Amino acid sequence: MAKELRVGLIGCGFMGRTHSNAYRRLNNFFDVEHRPVLKAICDTNEPKARQYAQTWGYERVETDWRNLLTAKDIDLIDICVPNVAHAEIAIAAAQAGKMVCTEKPMAMNAAQAEEMVRAVEMAGVPNMVSFNYRRVPSISLAKQIVDEGRIGRPFHYRALYLQDWTISADVPQGGDALWRLDARVSGSGVTGDLLAHSIDTAMWLNGPIARVMAKAETFVKERKHAVSGQVEPVTIDDACMFLAVFANGSMGTFESTRYARGRKNFNTFELNGADGSLYFDLEEPEYLQFFEYKQKETGKKTASHLTGWRKIHTTNSEHPYMSHYWVPGTCIGYEHTFLNALADFVEGIEKGTPAQPNFRTALQTQRVCDAVIASARRSEWVDTGAE
Amino acid sequence: MAKELRVGLIGCGFMGRTHSNAYRRLNNFFDVEHRPVLKAICDTNEPKARQYAQTWGYERVETDWRNLLTAKDIDLIDICVPNVAHAEIAIAAAQAGKMVCTEKPMAMNAAQAEEMVRAVEMAGVPNMVSFNYRRVPSISLAKQIVDEGRIGRPFHYRALYLQDWTISADVPQGGDALWRLDARVSGSGVTGDLLAHSIDTAMWLNGPIARVMAKAETFVKERKHAVSGQVEPVTIDDACMFLAVFANGSMGTFESTRYARGRKNFNTFELNGADGSLYFDLEEPEYLQFFEYKQKETGKKTASHLTGWRKIHTTNSEHPYMSHYWVPGTCIGYEHTFLNALADFVEGIEKGTPAQPNFRTALQTQRVCDAVIASARRSEWVDTGAE
Amino acid sequence: MAKELRVGLIGCGFMGRTHSNAYRRLNNFFDVEHRPVLKAICDTNEPKARQYAQTWGYERVETDWRNLLTAKDIDLIDICVPNVAHAEIAIAAAQAGKMVCTEKPMAMNAAQAEEMVRAVEMAGVPNMVSFNYRRVPSISLAKQIVDEGRIGRPFHYRALYLQDWTISADVPQGGDALWRLDARVSGSGVTGDLLAHSIDTAMWLNGPIARVMAKAETFVKERKHAVSGQVEPVTIDDACMFLAVFANGSMGTFESTRYARGRKNFNTFELNGADGSLYFDLEEPEYLQFFEYKQKETGKKTASHLTGWRKIHTTNSEHPYMSHYWVPGTCIGYEHTFLNALADFVEGIEKGTPAQPNFRTALQTQRVCDAVIASARRSEWVDTGAE
Amino acid sequence: MAKELRVGLIGCGFMGRTHSNAYRRLNNFFDVEHRPVLKAICDTNEPKARQYAQTWGYERVETDWRNLLTAKDIDLIDICVPNVAHAEIAIAAAQAGKMVCTEKPMAMNAAQAEEMVRAVEMAGVPNMVSFNYRRVPSISLAKQIVDEGRIGRPFHYRALYLQDWTISADVPQGGDALWRLDARVSGSGVTGDLLAHSIDTAMWLNGPIARVMAKAETFVKERKHAVSGQVEPVTIDDACMFLAVFANGSMGTFESTRYARGRKNFNTFELNGADGSLYFDLEEPEYLQFFEYKQKETGKKTASHLTGWRKIHTTNSEHPYMSHYWVPGTCIGYEHTFLNALADFVEGIEKGTPAQPNFRTALQTQRVCDAVIASARRSEWVDTGAE
Repeated sequence: MAKELRVGLIGCGFMGRTHSNAYRRLNNFFDVEHRPVLKAICDTNEPKARQYAQTWGYERVETDWRNLLTAKDIDLIDICVPNVAHAEIAIAAAQAGKMVCTEKPMAMNAAQAEEMVRAVEMAGVPNMVSFNYRRVPSISLAKQIVDEGRIGRPFHYRALYLQDWTISADVPQGGDALWRLDARVSGSGVTGDLLAHSIDTAMWLNGPIARVMAKAETFVKERKHAVSGQVEPVTIDDACMFLAVFANGSMGTFESTRYARGRKNFNTFELNGADGSLYFDLEEPEYLQFFEYKQKETGKKTASHLTGWRKIHTTNSEHPYMSHYWVPGTCIGYEHTFLNALADFVEGIEKGTPAQPNFRTALQTQRVCDAVIASARRSEWVDTGAE
Repeated sequence: MAKELRVGLIGCGFMGRTHSNAYRRLNNFFDVEHRPVLKAICDTNEPKARQYAQTWGYERVETDWRNLLTAKDIDLIDICVPNVAHAEIAIAAAQAGKMVCTEKPMAMNAAQAEEMVRAVEMAGVPNMVSFNYRRVPSISLAKQIVDEGRIGRPFHYRALYLQDWTISADVPQGGDALWRLDARVSGSGVTGDLLAHSIDTAMWLNGPIARVMAKAETFVKERKHAVSGQVEPVTIDDACMFLAVFANGSMGTFESTRYARGRKNFNTFELNGADGSLYFDLEEPEYLQFFEYKQKETGKKTASHLTGWRKIHTTNSEHPYMSHYWVPGTCIGYEHTFLNALADFVEGIEKGTPAQPNFRTALQTQRVCDAVIASARRSEWVDTGAE
Repeated sequence: MAKELRVGLIGCGFMGRTHSNAYRRLNNFFDVEHRPVLKAICDTNEPKARQYAQTWGYERVETDWRNLLTAKDIDLIDICVPNVAHAEIAIAAAQAGKMVCTEKPMAMNAAQAEEMVRAVEMAGVPNMVSFNYRRVPSISLAKQIVDEGRIGRPFHYRALYLQDWTISADVPQGGDALWRLDARVSGSGVTGDLLAHSIDTAMWLNGPIARVMAKAETFVKERKHAVSGQVEPVTIDDACMFLAVFANGSMGTFESTRYARGRKNFNTFELNGADGSLYFDLEEPEYLQFFEYKQKETGKKTASHLTGWRKIHTTNSEHPYMSHYWVPGTCIGYEHTFLNALADFVEGIEKGTPAQPNFRTALQTQRVCDAVIASARRSEWVDTGAE
Repeated sequence: MAKELRVGLIGCGFMGRTHSNAYRRLNNFFDVEHRPVLKAICDTNEPKARQYAQTWGYERVETDWRNLLTAKDIDLIDICVPNVAHAEIAIAAAQAGKMVCTEKPMAMNAAQAEEMVRAVEMAGVPNMVSFNYRRVPSISLAKQIVDEGRIGRPFHYRALYLQDWTISADVPQGGDALWRLDARVSGSGVTGDLLAHSIDTAMWLNGPIARVMAKAETFVKERKHAVSGQVEPVTIDDACMFLAVFANGSMGTFESTRYARGRKNFNTFELNGADGSLYFDLEEPEYLQFFEYKQKETGKKTASHLTGWRKIHTTNSEHPYMSHYWVPGTCIGYEHTFLNALADFVEGIEKGTPAQPNFRTALQTQRVCDAVIASARRSEWVDTGAE
């Protein structure tokens, strides 16, 4: 008999959609004991929530998330609202004894994130931050290749996360759709929205980032605000780039923007080590590129005339997550990263090995984000305090 | 109120899985009136069918497909069994007044396919053959670009469909998993399995194929049969290549194999016209490559210093089907081709404009497949009779 | 002291330029005993020949190639005139005891080519046909990889040679610049001009082609002739595609055209074997793609999670010819293929191991070309007689 | 009658080779009035210089560069020695009234470079610094596209220059071959050797760099010195990365290293503007990638379903420099960048419009290099003083 995992999801935006889809599909693809049950969808916009309930099959609608805290039929509270509300809800949920998942970035700042860690650890509830890109099979494979010792001493890590959707000065800020452009709601611009992903992946693959030196820019200085209807100063960082030093001594460069014409969701990284290198680009997620200089199994260098960057089409059943899906050569999509993450979360519960990144791990990413913002303000190197 | 579309699906193999998934997800992504209801799953292997029912949520299990014909609670019979059984089931289903969908290839040969066309047309029931790759957004976009008149007079069409999974002589033939290697069950090897896709796409984009000249090969002459346990001659074509002349006068080359080491699901095509060219590769389905020589809107040639092959990342909301999914830059996967096809089928019912390819259209593809096989046997050019 | 290699070159067209450049540069890059001396340039167009002599440093000008036969200061006659004149000149040159190099295709047909072979073999003079693409380092590397046994049993070979420069019906035919469009001068269209390259490479890498089945097409039926000034029927094949069976049992597809919009010099091949595959594209000649399934050194399969197509940037000093040039990562160009070929020719003389393809080897390619043309005319499979 | 351009070249290393080759080939490909005459090759290593003279056709050998100053038969002194000697030679050559070309980086530091500018401007002699990559046709095309106004307001510029040849700690430093690893001779490591190229290109395409914030690293702390035979501290920067702000307000990131396993000469840049973007990679120099958002000619946006990154194969006769070479689709190589630069230099003399970058222009690049090094030392933002 399957155990129920009764879900209350808060937030009927884009992320609520990706999570709802994952819950509905878990048992079609993963052989886990738990069966998600979509108990309640919560949004202050009731008609929107009703529509959501119908589309995704939620049993009931709530307009106040506090109702989920006391609901006996909810095991897991999933937070898909704008960043400003993550901490309050997550802390309350943990204190109510619920499992908690939240979208990234974890919080508005590290201070909030620390409180969130305290709350879930005191309550002893399972918890996760949705850095879904770890579960792109190609990125999981990168982690596997690193862990297998195929990269050797790391020298360089570089990450880009480039988009182009806010170039027009006619794009407004704020409101339901564009809260990401309003720092009062989002905490920051590309730093929390995009660089947080890059940082999470970087530290997963290459260990803690010790120090950063950043520069941020707001290209469009004012935009009409969707709520006030007034032209208001833009408070977010439109673009942010930073230099980094990892704890292992390797060097890092990171850049993110929403002003890179032609780049839609260009989330890339490259890791260069003494024995090999890796490259990934989220716009063609079915590939991981690997340069194998020294072969682990034999300890020998690849013959010089045969060396080259190898495009691994990560759709074999031996690739992470792929045995759950179709056949070699057939791709999965963006949404499956959420499904894979959910599967890991549920397996973590069942096996007692918490899925990553949990709140404690994600706190490190929040600290780096804070250090990036501080460095950009102060124009100096800032220690992250990441351990 | 949603209308129910009550489904009886036959065949618990790989294709049954792709179709089941599509039914379950239709209303999450498409705003159609009908709501698929998974009434019955049918397979002669009852335990397998039971497992399927549990995974995908079918209400009941049948082991004899004939039971679906008389079931009052079934609107649509979906045929996902090996090719040998398509015709009999489809004809019976049509005669029972059910809508009929079948996996490709449509039948064992054109004679069967003609009977199937007669049956569905006499019964007046909606019908479709699952050439799902038409619904890869990049391929649908190719069709749109052709229809917009951006390619001009066509000169060449070339298609490859390369895989590598049967190279080892240790792979057995026959049985549940490997019926595709047994011509008594599959009708043919790569011709029906892979070239049928290439031909369907080719004729959709470039019109009827008039004549073909083919050569087929069976590289591994005998394999152990999974049912008999004996080593038996291999009866399928392991590889098949053919030259073609289209009705519009352009030239075609087609090749398919399961012996192309390193190609997993390498389904590609290129169309060269006087004004532009297109290229697609299913292993990176998020791209359509387009060379624009003459710009339709202005009637002018692209400036020579700016000409080049353009990789269109077909994930904008303006691209076919993509407004139903996520955001620009995020990919969908293999399974969505089935979902898109189902959405088209249902919209076809609702709007009275049958989705393509229906049985009549797919018959042309079957005729070309037959001509290919005949040509390979007789070593001469064969007219397809395609109109 | 360097030995002189005194050259008389016939033909002031495009190919004359590539060869002249190679002679001038040989000793800058290759440590051979011989030093080419540009003795005479010959063209019926004397002003053009004078200009050539000045640009490239030829000592004198001739307008009748027969003068080169009797000249005591000429060791090597290099034939860069249109195809129609190859045989007569080559035979006369051999009979005069000169070394002979000729541009490809070797002759108008195999009958001529056989006479040419007889002539050079009776005279015992060094001879070569300029299939320069063998000397693209990436293609030479492909040969090396095949010879090292890394591909295993071959199943498939496919080659394309696509261009787009004759699509416009306004392009005239004939004359100095466009003799390639006049079959009386060129012998054939794309078959001799482009497919001959593809066939030479294919047989070098994969052995003799035993049988072919071809289809040719002339898309633009008449063009103004540059000599007569009249609109005349076009006599060449604009496009030609053929199926092939190699002597080793593998299957081949070949296609060539000058009507593939967007393809400029798209000369590609792919070889699929049981243990590995190769892919090359002349438009990015610095790469050879290699899929390594079974590793030769260890006899083991590549771990499934690490398999992928590897882009070898063939600019290491370990790659063919590259130790003569610059540093890893820096590309050489089209013209170096002629230089490399010349170096091989000269080393062949010095070491007594004739460079390939000599006339005897190139005769096989001519026979396949003849078989292709015959097959296209007769619409049936034709044996090549290639050994 | 051709005018002679009598050359005295100093330095028989790798760069001397690239320049010698360019001189020898100029009149084969470019229709200029001047004809380079290789009068003298100079190197302190006389046997090496003799070998060079023979290979490249220099008329005589010198072992003291000062002899060139007084030689009446020398018009141009070309400096291909290690960086430490650039300034002294260049200044003396200018004072002697000779034209001066020097390899990059221009000097050990900006102070030297300023003296060099003063010297050539006082003497009024033609002068150039060999930033040869400007003359890759794809990079020249990038400049043309920028100048045509197709990019619009610039937001971002990012450049990488990655190599991997010093990873092994067994590579020695110093001496003839490895002086680039000895800062006493080279001035700096990757900053002067590689970043100087990136900076020159960046400022050519996107205007002056106003401020930088850098971090440098020396991964291998000591190496055996080829001259002393002793293990000595490594004084160069193995890797250097920096953030930049351009005078036009756009943001820049730059990174260079010799520790990026698998990158051989990976010199890339990307420019993102409001109307379009450009991307280039020197490992596939025949391509320039262009994303055209707004079309200059029509003032209209590209239709959303047709947008994509276009790979321009820069081998058309309409592309920069390419009308001098072969036919569309055929590539030129690394060495032609030097030939193109020489052609520009000579045309500059003939037309009275000095080729770029001359000493004055290159001084700006040197200032940015100095600022980068200063910033890396002081861990703070440094103004470049670039105008």
